[in-house]
Amino acid sequence: MDALPLAPLPMVMIEPAVRAALLEDLGRAGDITSDAIIPAGLNARVALVSRQDGVVAGLDFAACAFRLIDPTIRLAIACPDGSRLSPGTAIASIEGPARAILTAERVALNFLGHLSGIASATRSIVDAIAGHRARICCTRKTMPGLRAAQKYAVRAGGGSNHRFGLDDAVLIKDNHVAIAGGIAPAIRRARAGVGHLVKIECEVDTLDQLREALAEGVDAVLLDNMTPPMLTEAVAIVAGRAITEASGRIRPDTAAAVAASGVDLISIGWLTHSATVLDIGLDHRA
Amino acid sequence: MDALPLAPLPMVMIEPAVRAALLEDLGRAGDITSDAIIPAGLNARVALVSRQDGVVAGLDFAACAFRLIDPTIRLAIACPDGSRLSPGTAIASIEGPARAILTAERVALNFLGHLSGIASATRSIVDAIAGHRARICCTRKTMPGLRAAQKYAVRAGGGSNHRFGLDDAVLIKDNHVAIAGGIAPAIRRARAGVGHLVKIECEVDTLDQLREALAEGVDAVLLDNMTPPMLTEAVAIVAGRAITEASGRIRPDTAAAVAASGVDLISIGWLTHSATVLDIGLDHRA
Amino acid sequence: MDALPLAPLPMVMIEPAVRAALLEDLGRAGDITSDAIIPAGLNARVALVSRQDGVVAGLDFAACAFRLIDPTIRLAIACPDGSRLSPGTAIASIEGPARAILTAERVALNFLGHLSGIASATRSIVDAIAGHRARICCTRKTMPGLRAAQKYAVRAGGGSNHRFGLDDAVLIKDNHVAIAGGIAPAIRRARAGVGHLVKIECEVDTLDQLREALAEGVDAVLLDNMTPPMLTEAVAIVAGRAITEASGRIRPDTAAAVAASGVDLISIGWLTHSATVLDIGLDHRA
Amino acid sequence: MDALPLAPLPMVMIEPAVRAALLEDLGRAGDITSDAIIPAGLNARVALVSRQDGVVAGLDFAACAFRLIDPTIRLAIACPDGSRLSPGTAIASIEGPARAILTAERVALNFLGHLSGIASATRSIVDAIAGHRARICCTRKTMPGLRAAQKYAVRAGGGSNHRFGLDDAVLIKDNHVAIAGGIAPAIRRARAGVGHLVKIECEVDTLDQLREALAEGVDAVLLDNMTPPMLTEAVAIVAGRAITEASGRIRPDTAAAVAASGVDLISIGWLTHSATVLDIGLDHRA
Amino acid sequence: MDALPLAPLPMVMIEPAVRAALLEDLGRAGDITSDAIIPAGLNARVALVSRQDGVVAGLDFAACAFRLIDPTIRLAIACPDGSRLSPGTAIASIEGPARAILTAERVALNFLGHLSGIASATRSIVDAIAGHRARICCTRKTMPGLRAAQKYAVRAGGGSNHRFGLDDAVLIKDNHVAIAGGIAPAIRRARAGVGHLVKIECEVDTLDQLREALAEGVDAVLLDNMTPPMLTEAVAIVAGRAITEASGRIRPDTAAAVAASGVDLISIGWLTHSATVLDIGLDHRA
Amino acid sequence: MDALPLAPLPMVMIEPAVRAALLEDLGRAGDITSDAIIPAGLNARVALVSRQDGVVAGLDFAACAFRLIDPTIRLAIACPDGSRLSPGTAIASIEGPARAILTAERVALNFLGHLSGIASATRSIVDAIAGHRARICCTRKTMPGLRAAQKYAVRAGGGSNHRFGLDDAVLIKDNHVAIAGGIAPAIRRARAGVGHLVKIECEVDTLDQLREALAEGVDAVLLDNMTPPMLTEAVAIVAGRAITEASGRIRPDTAAAVAASGVDLISIGWLTHSATVLDIGLDHRA
Repeated sequence: MDALPLAPLPMVMIEPAVRAALLEDLGRAGDITSDAIIPAGLNARVALVSRQDGVVAGLDFAACAFRLIDPTIRLAIACPDGSRLSPGTAIASIEGPARAILTAERVALNFLGHLSGIASATRSIVDAIAGHRARICCTRKTMPGLRAAQKYAVRAGGGSNHRFGLDDAVLIKDNHVAIAGGIAPAIRRARAGVGHLVKIECEVDTLDQLREALAEGVDAVLLDNMTPPMLTEAVAIVAGRAITEASGRIRPDTAAAVAASGVDLISIGWLTHSATVLDIGLDHRA
Repeated sequence: MDALPLAPLPMVMIEPAVRAALLEDLGRAGDITSDAIIPAGLNARVALVSRQDGVVAGLDFAACAFRLIDPTIRLAIACPDGSRLSPGTAIASIEGPARAILTAERVALNFLGHLSGIASATRSIVDAIAGHRARICCTRKTMPGLRAAQKYAVRAGGGSNHRFGLDDAVLIKDNHVAIAGGIAPAIRRARAGVGHLVKIECEVDTLDQLREALAEGVDAVLLDNMTPPMLTEAVAIVAGRAITEASGRIRPDTAAAVAASGVDLISIGWLTHSATVLDIGLDHRA
Repeated sequence: MDALPLAPLPMVMIEPAVRAALLEDLGRAGDITSDAIIPAGLNARVALVSRQDGVVAGLDFAACAFRLIDPTIRLAIACPDGSRLSPGTAIASIEGPARAILTAERVALNFLGHLSGIASATRSIVDAIAGHRARICCTRKTMPGLRAAQKYAVRAGGGSNHRFGLDDAVLIKDNHVAIAGGIAPAIRRARAGVGHLVKIECEVDTLDQLREALAEGVDAVLLDNMTPPMLTEAVAIVAGRAITEASGRIRPDTAAAVAASGVDLISIGWLTHSATVLDIGLDHRA
Repeated sequence: MDALPLAPLPMVMIEPAVRAALLEDLGRAGDITSDAIIPAGLNARVALVSRQDGVVAGLDFAACAFRLIDPTIRLAIACPDGSRLSPGTAIASIEGPARAILTAERVALNFLGHLSGIASATRSIVDAIAGHRARICCTRKTMPGLRAAQKYAVRAGGGSNHRFGLDDAVLIKDNHVAIAGGIAPAIRRARAGVGHLVKIECEVDTLDQLREALAEGVDAVLLDNMTPPMLTEAVAIVAGRAITEASGRIRPDTAAAVAASGVDLISIGWLTHSATVLDIGLDHRA
Repeated sequence: MDALPLAPLPMVMIEPAVRAALLEDLGRAGDITSDAIIPAGLNARVALVSRQDGVVAGLDFAACAFRLIDPTIRLAIACPDGSRLSPGTAIASIEGPARAILTAERVALNFLGHLSGIASATRSIVDAIAGHRARICCTRKTMPGLRAAQKYAVRAGGGSNHRFGLDDAVLIKDNHVAIAGGIAPAIRRARAGVGHLVKIECEVDTLDQLREALAEGVDAVLLDNMTPPMLTEAVAIVAGRAITEASGRIRPDTAAAVAASGVDLISIGWLTHSATVLDIGLDHRA
Repeated sequence: MDALPLAPLPMVMIEPAVRAALLEDLGRAGDITSDAIIPAGLNARVALVSRQDGVVAGLDFAACAFRLIDPTIRLAIACPDGSRLSPGTAIASIEGPARAILTAERVALNFLGHLSGIASATRSIVDAIAGHRARICCTRKTMPGLRAAQKYAVRAGGGSNHRFGLDDAVLIKDNHVAIAGGIAPAIRRARAGVGHLVKIECEVDTLDQLREALAEGVDAVLLDNMTPPMLTEAVAIVAGRAITEASGRIRPDTAAAVAASGVDLISIGWLTHSATVLDIGLDHRA
């Protein structure tokens, strides 16, 4: 049973972010350059074109930006979110009033370039570990206000999502362990305090900590900053009793070695906090 | 007359963004891990510590995150925004309820790491062109919803700001020129259409375009994707009649050559759209 | 390792709801009755007093209402959230400007009475099944806009929380099963599609469906509308391999029989969609 | 001259509440169950069906929920708000993408069930006093954030509305009387302080208080916790000089006796603070 | 029994409007002039000084503006809202950081000047009709978004308030009458459709219409565009059976003649839609 | 090269203000008068008609009000924003449900009358100085929350816009000069502190101050409260080196004399803070 294709975010989740971004850009006077220079009745045909290899994400955000500036703008998508792009790939064509297209352009591209950058980075790591069981996932190290959008972009790149916030799973970190007086009491308190559909993951730095967590029946273990050989040993110790997650500054060139340890997940903060924009431009067509 | 030190953003501009980021992270149940594991009465002393060389920015955002979770948390700043950091520099110390500190930690660090990343990147370019007249500035290629914060971070890194939005200056780009039928008519229409305190900048790709723009008395010219020798020639042609801005994929290692042309400004989109986070952690103190 | 006491919701989650409720009540002219009749300088001492047996919840909401109308109002809590109340129990004493207290009174009591009603209903069921392993939990059948508050009230009453929304756990219902073509394919698709910290629960109506779900390694099963004997059989079949949840119009007088089946959870929609207010009044003191 | 049929609330009043409820349910990832299991292209035909006797209210809220998730969903109303329902009554039919229908279902039903519950409770009391002059009305004891919706539901059930907030009428209660030094001074102050279109109602506990209020020319009197014989005497004393409102824990089985006293209004807090949900389900059609 | 002094609006009603106005003025970069020129540590003492005769209103809005920019600013009020001012009257003194005072100045003055302008205009008419029974009131012709504030300013000037919105009283106008088929059916329908605490006012253009409205027991009549003699006759016809309101382009110089007719109210739209600002400045003190 | 015709504000900037104004007017019950009196199915044809000479502005705001109440209302514009009006001019015709039209009427007219009042006042001054080079512009003395709309109305009346906020240009006033220790240091600090696209204007009260500002290369000078002869002298001194703006209680009858001095701009605060409404009514058509 294969997974279904990437599901879009509901527009009710997208529109407030796009609306806010447009108002941030329009300020109190709107696009004074285009208003002064572009006649109101003029139409234009443009295309969103990739200038790089990568994966597209965020077309619904871009489309929403154009639509909110002028609902008569038509946007036809050639490469839906998740598609691979090469330099020159036409992602979508747009037709409508030239002034409105120019007014919405930057906000549309800011969403599209940023989210495609995340999707592309994710895909590059996913590709690097192809053949291994591990899935790539993101963290809560996200841009303020953009978490849902960024996590969606990770999915568009073939990745998986870790916690969406402080409230949808327990992640016991070293500070929690220190204050609780050990891994076992921390896990027990967590189990006593949270609902039955909440999974509990515990960060472990050593194999002894790992064994202690497993003895408490933890759902998942975050194997923090372990070398591939240590990860391999950890996976053997776990022996399927918990989900295993490797974490700690994993980059495209080190991911395969980590994945070879057999872990279930590799979590990577920089996918969302430091991804480079994907260069997508808006080309005018004759 | 030296410039005054970096001015903070008014809290009324900061709090809504921090509030939104906290609610995004707290979701509908709050920090279920800390609530389950950390006793309510326990206090902690922690420090915000840099793990890298860089420049700090965003302390008011971080402080706001802690304060909104618990107004009894005390934050004492050792290195105000704009300070240079080394690995191990303690930026601020924090004291208060341990649970609240852990709950606010990630949002505080997400703001602080991202804005410090921008400030650090800016500073590295500013340093690279020291001795030249050019100032480094950012663009409108910002993260949706974070423009004011990101532009502030550029200032914290010693940079300058370009337009804040579509409405505070005219920037005539190639599409505007094409539709208006030339640089001269575009500039004339802009002057006729906007207020007296609005400057007009025009993008030029060639020296002929540059001369045409100057003939119209444009306030600033954006010299797009020109080589250093061409920039030098352009600066000579301008001869002080307009502000000169160089643009086009300028990186730390190429900035000095660009600056040597004598341009007034070097604008760089990746400062805001692709800056790498600065690694700042929260260390627990005895 | 006992669970920690009930953790409060962060004020940043409470204040927007209280602010909205106050504005809803104040309208465009404020409390015209008290403004016209109560002199501005007059102080009052009042107490929040229960008129019924029950459990209190929502004091932070009530305190926020008084504080937002006048920050000089002092509220001293005698019975924190989760405390049992009898007719006449003084829950908190309040001192401050009489006009402001009367202005905030109704909003404070609307939150307090409603959330205490939920806590009290939850506690009555929790008490009814004392000695059994089952925990009482709520559903997503909540009042629009009040989910976080209502779920908190369930915790204050000794209950546990089910999903907070559509996004923090998978719950496969009959419609999903029908469309997916069976329980097994539905579970497999869900597992392929969601993150590693997301638990998967499946609704089953028959013991055959239950076996099918268990075979797929589901995390939890929702045993829908089963009689206590059938529940007992189901629990035996599960044999600890999954969390068992009984659901379906369970009332205080039938809960013990359901709990005797050995299920882990009993979920009850009416705790949040139909709970009766707890009668709490504001009594003036000499 | 009969009253016009129930007027709908303008959509501009409905949409913000529905939007907030959807975002509350969708969280940061949306409907992960349906997204993982229901193929995007699949359509469904469903019906909103009552499982109980009652009166429907809130269809515009439900329709708005479906429309905000997917504007292509078509909803055809068979029983408009205010219609009487029996078990099995199909209230509306819905057709559109199966995934979107399932995503919006719970929010739509939460509004519809709650508001129909209020309408049904109202109608049951209205029916119980049929033949008497009294109208049934609600109070300000409403769910925070839902006042306009709940008051609308009371109208849908054949009831009438009391004050919508603190600002649209004066209601002098015992605390106001005590502070003002009597009923007469309280009424005089109120009249001096408010606009000419604001009615003044005064709560009275005794017939002497009633006479004092009438002597001041009060517009309405709230006869608090009086027995039916005492109410009858009060109505005789009033003799049409003011509107008479009976209040105080009136239930369906006691309402007729209260109404027989001849009062103009019977106000009932539990219609809005403690109404039981009306069980309405979403049935899938072939 | 005299009316109590003017009651302030609750801060929870004031702050959102002030916050929005500050953000509107601060834009995305804040007060770039003061930030660049005024050193951060410098304090200033200033005073709000009237340049004209008038009545002050809006000090809580002004104080909120200063407080939101910098909570350390101290504002001491010498002339509370409703006080009469002469040229040179010091209304309040302000002490705090010079930069913050300058940043908040314009927003504070925009509220204060506008609301004082309304209060002053109201007071001038109230004074012009002194000795007559009539009260001066405003209409729904208000600036979008400022209704509660403007209506408060009318009260500060000694005026009274008409409806606050479409929902707190019935006002039957000529269009309603035309569609309903007459004054009597319109009033009857209104009475059947609205709650018991809602007053019904009907606009009448002729004395026949007036008699028809009175025969239906209307609560108030709006005597539209009648001459003083006709108003006198109308008041005689009403004979105390309803509240009488005169309306129609009444100005300071015509108000006394209107008031002499004995009407209860004179409503004036321009108090809120066209009031001239009261010139209040911010003077720096040594 | 003539300026392009007046550009409309994007709807994304208009709708939030209109939505807020409608909710302010609808309150918690909507238009109770029309709901009670006007049958739901009745249609009406009405026209927006001017009762005065003037210039129309704000039709998009009015149209938005009607559309948000009922999207089936059709509005056909005969005189677009900026058109001159005479008594009786039909500005737009409207067709749709009578009840919805009456519900939206007041909000639509409040926007339209106020913005047209500003446009009309602006146009009267613009006409008064026809033949002179000066442009008429507004200030930051605007109604809180309405700045973008009011500034648009000034453009519709043929005027120009000064700063939109504190952040889009530097305006050095007497307080800044005093604190900085002179005009020269103030201008130097400003230049050092702001971006390259920000113009710097300095207020001067004397010709000596003017010369000092020019020596610093200021972009614009605000000639405050100077007589026409003094303005003439100032313009001669400036000799094209900076933009000249005259300011200080300039009225229609004094504007021509001011303009004759040759200044570039005449700024007038009362256009936005004290403009009189333009009387526009809604007439019902057969």
